[in-house]
Amino acid sequence: MISQISGLDARFALAKTIAKEAGAVALGYFNTRDTLVVETKRDAQDVVSIADREVENLIRARVANIHAEDGFLGEEYGLVEGQSGYTWIVDPIDGTSPFVNGMPNWCVSIAVLQNGEPVIGVIFSPCHDELYAAAKGQGAILNGKLLSLDPSRTIRNAVTGIGANNYVSPAAVGKIVESLLEAGGNFVRNGSGALMLAYVAAGRLVGYYEPCMHAWDCLAGYCLVHEAGGWCHPFPTAGERLTRGAPVLAAGPGAREDLAKIAGL
Amino acid sequence: MISQISGLDARFALAKTIAKEAGAVALGYFNTRDTLVVETKRDAQDVVSIADREVENLIRARVANIHAEDGFLGEEYGLVEGQSGYTWIVDPIDGTSPFVNGMPNWCVSIAVLQNGEPVIGVIFSPCHDELYAAAKGQGAILNGKLLSLDPSRTIRNAVTGIGANNYVSPAAVGKIVESLLEAGGNFVRNGSGALMLAYVAAGRLVGYYEPCMHAWDCLAGYCLVHEAGGWCHPFPTAGERLTRGAPVLAAGPGAREDLAKIAGL
Repeated sequence: MISQISGLDARFALAKTIAKEAGAVALGYFNTRDTLVVETKRDAQDVVSIADREVENLIRARVANIHAEDGFLGEEYGLVEGQSGYTWIVDPIDGTSPFVNGMPNWCVSIAVLQNGEPVIGVIFSPCHDELYAAAKGQGAILNGKLLSLDPSRTIRNAVTGIGANNYVSPAAVGKIVESLLEAGGNFVRNGSGALMLAYVAAGRLVGYYEPCMHAWDCLAGYCLVHEAGGWCHPFPTAGERLTRGAPVLAAGPGAREDLAKIAGL
Repeated sequence: MISQISGLDARFALAKTIAKEAGAVALGYFNTRDTLVVETKRDAQDVVSIADREVENLIRARVANIHAEDGFLGEEYGLVEGQSGYTWIVDPIDGTSPFVNGMPNWCVSIAVLQNGEPVIGVIFSPCHDELYAAAKGQGAILNGKLLSLDPSRTIRNAVTGIGANNYVSPAAVGKIVESLLEAGGNFVRNGSGALMLAYVAAGRLVGYYEPCMHAWDCLAGYCLVHEAGGWCHPFPTAGERLTRGAPVLAAGPGAREDLAKIAGL
């Protein structure tokens, strides 16, 4: 009898392989970033480079080569619908701003949705050689180590990640910071929302909140946090909603209530 | 004729050697941090561990061994006055919160003051193997590469670092974030003020503002930023003022005016 690898397991293995390959290519661009041409998108703070586009093309090609029937949504080139029930959701370089400015806090983020649910989440941080990987029902792993969140960690004895972009008013962002500090919390913002979500799964941050994120920024992190024992505010994935922004909140069990209150969710 | 190394050059060479040795020891603690006992200081967010203390003791011993007549101020064990006119100002682990939580953004920070002026600044980031080093009149160097700030970078086309602690009200911190975003800026806070100041010297951040910092957090970074061609709001170093907190603002030439306005300095 020949055992057959499941559709989920095949894609999980592929996602990990691709994340490492894509990360190595991105790291090559990072190490020669003085020659990168950087363009702006929505404003002078919203940047993109050839590295983002080339890395997304690489990931699309690798997936299409093996699972041509899968859907694919990438930050740079949008959505291609599939027929298999699986959809890959990819941010080739999350944290483009740190990347082009020479800071190490950026990552490759790959999620796979099945029936609207993120069943695979893989995040690779090339500057730190850290691979975060989770598949539904299989737990979350960081470089081979199983991750499990500690319920005694709260916003008061641990650190919370925050993020923001210009979909949200400056006053609203200032208010988030004020509310978190007022409640006894402390914050970091390292420039990559996906990486901060991976840090929540690893227990390095007790939670992450950003008022408006896209699917490619958060769904891999959501799968990781969920499999590590954390909670995530639902992200809408049905139909056109998948390509629009929505609030993102992920938290360990001891921080969920406080952060939901601060976020008004 | 025997050439004699100057007092400044001797201490500059020693500071770089010690920073790398101290960083290696700290990295050992970081990699086995599951076993570290973490204590709190002023509140649950103000943490310290045996790693901070051991690394400061190591640096004190190395300096005393060669320059017993120098003064020494460290974050953990305070000020010992000297007689040589030189005073070492050391934060053994800047970014203790990222350190104990498993995030890579922490560093060893060593400054040397002469007549109240930071004439040496050395910052070592062990997780990234990056050594930032500057001495008065000799420029600022990152891993052998001379740093020079680009005057075309502003708060609007580059990223600004911010920091805060509970010496400042939550509302005031929220207001800093709001003002920076309102002016078209963007912020990161990676958890280590000293490392963010080194990033200013390297042009990765266009500026850094924190309403209240101590000498050990900022003086090495100040020397680096100054030698890279940037500007720093003066930090009071005379007499008892050296051990007290004060506002810290460092900026590249294109960001100085905007950030001084936001900071009200």
